[in-house]
Order: sequence, then structure tokens, then C-alpha cells
Amino acid sequence: MKHRQALAYFGGAPAFAQPLHVAQLNLPEWERIESRFRDIFRRHFFANNGPLVQALDVAFADYAGVEHAVSVTNGTLGLMILARALEISGEVIVPAFTFPATAQAVAWAGLTPVLADVLPASHMIAPKTVAPLLTRQTVGIIGVHVWGRPCDPDGLQAFAAERNLTLFYDACHAIGCTHRGRRIGGFGSGEVFSYHATQVLNAAEGGCITTNDPRLADRLRTMRNFSPGQTFASVPTRINGKMSEAQAALALLSLEDLPDNIAANCARHDWYAAGLAEIPGVDLVRYPDGEDSNFQYVVIEIDADRSGIDRDIVFDLLAAENVLCRRHFAPGLHQLPYFAARGAAARGNGYPVTDRLCATVMQLPTGGTLARSDVERICHLIRCIVGDAETIVARIGGRP
Amino acid sequence: MKHRQALAYFGGAPAFAQPLHVAQLNLPEWERIESRFRDIFRRHFFANNGPLVQALDVAFADYAGVEHAVSVTNGTLGLMILARALEISGEVIVPAFTFPATAQAVAWAGLTPVLADVLPASHMIAPKTVAPLLTRQTVGIIGVHVWGRPCDPDGLQAFAAERNLTLFYDACHAIGCTHRGRRIGGFGSGEVFSYHATQVLNAAEGGCITTNDPRLADRLRTMRNFSPGQTFASVPTRINGKMSEAQAALALLSLEDLPDNIAANCARHDWYAAGLAEIPGVDLVRYPDGEDSNFQYVVIEIDADRSGIDRDIVFDLLAAENVLCRRHFAPGLHQLPYFAARGAAARGNGYPVTDRLCATVMQLPTGGTLARSDVERICHLIRCIVGDAETIVARIGGRP
Repeated sequence: MKHRQALAYFGGAPAFAQPLHVAQLNLPEWERIESRFRDIFRRHFFANNGPLVQALDVAFADYAGVEHAVSVTNGTLGLMILARALEISGEVIVPAFTFPATAQAVAWAGLTPVLADVLPASHMIAPKTVAPLLTRQTVGIIGVHVWGRPCDPDGLQAFAAERNLTLFYDACHAIGCTHRGRRIGGFGSGEVFSYHATQVLNAAEGGCITTNDPRLADRLRTMRNFSPGQTFASVPTRINGKMSEAQAALALLSLEDLPDNIAANCARHDWYAAGLAEIPGVDLVRYPDGEDSNFQYVVIEIDADRSGIDRDIVFDLLAAENVLCRRHFAPGLHQLPYFAARGAAARGNGYPVTDRLCATVMQLPTGGTLARSDVERICHLIRCIVGDAETIVARIGGRP
Repeated sequence: MKHRQALAYFGGAPAFAQPLHVAQLNLPEWERIESRFRDIFRRHFFANNGPLVQALDVAFADYAGVEHAVSVTNGTLGLMILARALEISGEVIVPAFTFPATAQAVAWAGLTPVLADVLPASHMIAPKTVAPLLTRQTVGIIGVHVWGRPCDPDGLQAFAAERNLTLFYDACHAIGCTHRGRRIGGFGSGEVFSYHATQVLNAAEGGCITTNDPRLADRLRTMRNFSPGQTFASVPTRINGKMSEAQAALALLSLEDLPDNIAANCARHDWYAAGLAEIPGVDLVRYPDGEDSNFQYVVIEIDADRSGIDRDIVFDLLAAENVLCRRHFAPGLHQLPYFAARGAAARGNGYPVTDRLCATVMQLPTGGTLARSDVERICHLIRCIVGDAETIVARIGGRP
């Protein structure tokens, strides 16, 4: 066991020579990319629903088991376009525990985001956390499939239908994941995926809106292009949300590689599960049995009461070892200036679960070429830190 | 002279074997692009204010003679971010004769676009077209430097200052253009450029916001990235408006080539001026003497009273010859569903000048490798069409 004195935080050599980021990128070989890019520059066709974007829309819809896929510049713009295309006006319930873009997109679409706390086990909203926030102005709910685990599609769908609320999803984490054997992509009125570099399907930057509603799909296709020349449907307002051919080329290559990348992620998740087993107060977030998951997130919760050490100290100690973890989604959205200025914290029952998750949750590196030995070394570091928690905390003096 | 019978519209062989689009693309050689792209993929740094975006922001600010340049995904997002960053709330005057994105961006930013007619000679708004539309809700004016000619910066600045209105600019056409010897980029509170493939500076897709206000620049830099981790200033809401490293690589190469590309455009414009001289009713839009222009737009107005033939017939006849002109900005924004639904046409003095320009203005091909002989052939076609106008119109039967 690596001892306290040997930890890099206290002057030892870092466990890794180079910084190890949370999302190791899954990238095709440059030669495959180059040949596609060369074709694009030969065709002189860079944007405006080009042949690669069209091919991607067909391929991704097929992959997600949904009728329509509409590629866009990035996931945030996808959410903005979807939220506006739904033709609702008023308040939309948004989880307090999510990436800020979920709420930002709702606000850009002219809707009022209202934050709901999440459940401790799922990290997600559910009818019981949404219900206290409903007013006569509530028109919709945006569920977020956090870590790629489904955000209670059955419960939320029934809840929304009973109350005539529009349900849609931020599915940025959830490419390839299933709920009751059905791929995420066709739940709610529409769902939005991310092809950001740190996602399991990597187009460097990019996003996609999916829906089974043909009329909505027409509206989405119209809205993503600002030009009045390509009008498939009458829409409230348009935007430049076009995906470029270069993005589509990368996404198509990444879609080819997706099964292999997910299998590799799954193996890494198993290695983490083994390596972190029975470390007191360190709990790995598990993926549902019998469903497909993309295992792109290796998430632990550190319960200081049992581990004897705060998440933030572990975070700093690992950073010193060049293991650069991430504390998504801290702070909770109710702490952001936009919501704080609107008195978000006073609404409903507050955000005790979000606050706790923001203080205890941490993502560990995965993806790319991260090897079994790397995973084992990271787990060993965490085991050493927790094993020596008392001494470390005494030396550091509590929270960093 | 090519006779009516020989025109492709009437069954002759097209003058050009391949379709000739309005904006022939200015692209660096693939070898230069490939080496930059290879570096990006080697660095694994694709977005998030990377080294190439930072270099571009410095280089473009220097080129435009302005303190701050903030690269963004595209011009529309630039306008949206700028409009929201200005912290105004209410009505903003927008030209009726502009690309729809100008008004769409204002609407996305939560402001109410109110359309102003333009002047016949400049094709742009001016204090006298703006004044009748002012109400107590008016908070700003967005000028558009149409075709890269300056949108009356002196007159609008004085007008806005007197009335305490915020003036900002859509400068998407105006890279490299000057007003009184000063580069566009530093006028109003902020200006927004486009690096779209069809612009003189081509990053396939892209945009940039410029300003001399350091506090506004901080807000813009914060807003373009949705992550709460990079906060330079407190902002109302954020967005994913990041420029990718690939876009920045293309923009930097295009910036290197810009003087040569502008010089080539300038020569083509001179060839057009010579080739179209003294064709009755066909007037070439001229660029201001003693100022820099980018000559990216070769714009003609066809006055049917003098030419004997409508713009739309000329457009169709040229299209048959594989000369694919463009009728920007038809229809006027007041005709778009968004504004029509709001009764835009009833406001102020209506849009007689915009309506006339939308019926008479047309852009001819330029840029890229368009040769002198191509320009001369296009001019010759137009001369033949106008010369034979009476017979053609009789045969077609008026407006197509």
C-alpha cells in the first residue's frame, strides 16, 4: 500500500506522469478521418444538410430505434430548438442536479426553468420531486438521463400525461442506453443527445434531436437552418443550428466504433467495481441489470461519515497524482447566479439531495485507451487514501 | 451577341457546363489544412477556447483594429450572445432588408425585433427610417453593414446617443471594410462578423463578436461557454457558442490569404463594372471610394422600366445557363411568418423600399477561382438578355 508520505500531495512522485482527464477521448485513427475530410473539401459542401449529415440522421435514427433524428451543432442548441419547437409557454421543471446547459437552453427558448430536487438513489427527478413545484404556469418537464441511466420514463410519462404537461428529455449522457429493452431516443415528445468530444459518440462537438412525431421532426429540421429557402414547416423562429459535414464525418466514424468503445467502457467499469470493492464509504454508481448502458461515466459517491474523508480532499489528493476527476454537477443549479437571483432556493422543499450529491459525487477517468493497470492504480490510490484517512485529515486540517 | 434562340432557357446549350454558385469558395490548399487538422487531433484539444481560438481572437482583433474579438460557433449565435450580453429589454429596431438571422437572433435573445425600412441608395437603415418606429419600449438599434458598406455609423451613433439607445451591428458582410479609414469592428457597442463558407473569410462555419468595451468582452467570453468552471464575469445566461479548433484553424489560414482574396475580388468587381457598363436598367452597386471594401458581393439592381425585363426573368434565364444568382434578401423580413403574424406591415410607413429592392436586387457569382473570362461571359449573357428583352418577355409572357 502506498503510504501517506508517498502521496504526491505530500511531496511524493505523482502516480501518473501525465494528467489523466475524466473523459479519455474515443477517436478513430487519423487516416480514417483524413480521407473523409479530404472528400468534404473536394466536394466543397460544408454545411446546409449535406450528404454526411443526411447519412448520419438515418444511421442514428436506426441506432436509437426512433423515427426521426435531426443533427444539430451541439446538444445545447438541440435543447433550445426542441424546447421552442414544442410551442409551449410558461414554466418547465428542470432537475437541479444536471449540467447547467439543460436549464440555460430552457431559458433561451423563452421558457421559465423551475428547479426540482432529485432522488438520492437515481440522482434524477421523479414524480414525487416534481409534484410540489407545479403551478398553473407549469407546461412541461425536462427529464435528464443522468449518467445514461433512464430518468423514470414510465413514471414521468404517466405523471405528465395526467396533468397535460409536455415531457421531453436531455439524453446527452444516454447514447446506446435502454429502458425495458428499448433504446433511449423515443421517450417523451423528443430527446436530445450530445456528440461532444467527452461523450461516448464523439464528433468533437455536435448534437442530435430525436422524435417519433413527424410534424415535430419537420419543425426541427426547419428551425435548425436559418435560411427561408428551405421551409418544411411553419415555425416560430429559426436559428443557425446546422451540423457541419466535418462533424457528421466524425460522428459516422464514431458510430462505427461505438459497439467496441462501449464494450471497452464496460470492461473498465467492471475493473473499477472490483478495484473499489469494500472501500468503506466509497460507493460506485451501478448500471441497471439486463439493460444496455454506455458506461461512459464512472461515478463514485464518497460518504465522509463512513470513509472518514471528504470528497473534496480525495479530489485534491488524486489531482496531485495527475488523476483529474470531475465534480459534476457541483454546484447545484439553484446556486448559479441566474437562479439564485430569482430566489430558487426558497421554492418547494429546497434541494437537500442535490446539495448532498454535489458534495459527495465524483467522476473517475474512463474511455480512450485507459488500461486495466491504470484503473487498478487509481483504485489503489483511493483505497490508500481512505485507509489512511484519519492521518491525512489530521495533517491537512479538515476540509481543504 | 448570343441570340435568344441560343439561350439555354429556350433550348440552347448552357453557357457554363457546371453550376456556378454566387459565392465561389475561397479555400486554402488541402495540404495546409491537413497539417493543422492533424495537429489538432494530435493535441486532443477540440474546443473550449483552445490555442487556435485564442490565436485567432488576437489576430482578428488586430486585423479589425479593435480591442477584443470573441470567436463563436457562427454569426447567428454571435448576434444572440451579443444582444443578450447588452442587458437591454424591450424593442430593438432591425432592418427589414437583411438576412433573417439578424431578426431571429434578436428574438432568441428575448428582445422584440421591430422592422425599419431602408434607404434606396444605401440599402440600409438610417435615422430617418428608424425614427418613425421609436416607442417608449425601444431600447436599441441593430445596424447591418449590407454588402460590406458601412451602415451610417456617424448618423446612427449620434441618433442613438441622443435617445439613449444601444447601437450594435451585424457586420457579417463587412470583414476588412472601412468607414472613414477605420476598420469596421469597433462601431457601436459591439459588432458581429461571419466566417461562413460563403464569406470572404471562410472557416466553413464560424463567427466573431468584436468590441472595445472590456467589461462587455468578459461577459461575451463567459457566455459563449456553458460551463460554470470558466467564469470571468457574472452573466444572465450562458450558451454553447464555442468555436472549435478546426474552425479556428481554417479561419487563421483564411486570414493569411485574405489580402490576396480581397484583391482578386476587387479585380473581378472591376471586370463586372466594365462588362455591365451602359446596359440599360442594370445598375451595379458600387463600393465607396477611398475606403477598403472586400468586394465579396457583386450586386446588381434591375429596373424593369428601363431594362424592359424583370429581375426574376433574368434570374431564371441565367439559371438555365448554370449561372446560379441569388435574390438576397427576398422576401423582406416583414413577409416572414414570424413578423406577418405580428402585423409588422402595418407599422410605421411600411416597407416600400425593401419591397422594391427585394424585387430588383440580385447577386452575381464572384470569389474562388472565378476567371476574367467567366465574368465576361456572364456580363455578355446579361447584355444579350436585356438587348433582346422585348422578344423574350413576349415569348415567356411577362413575369415567370
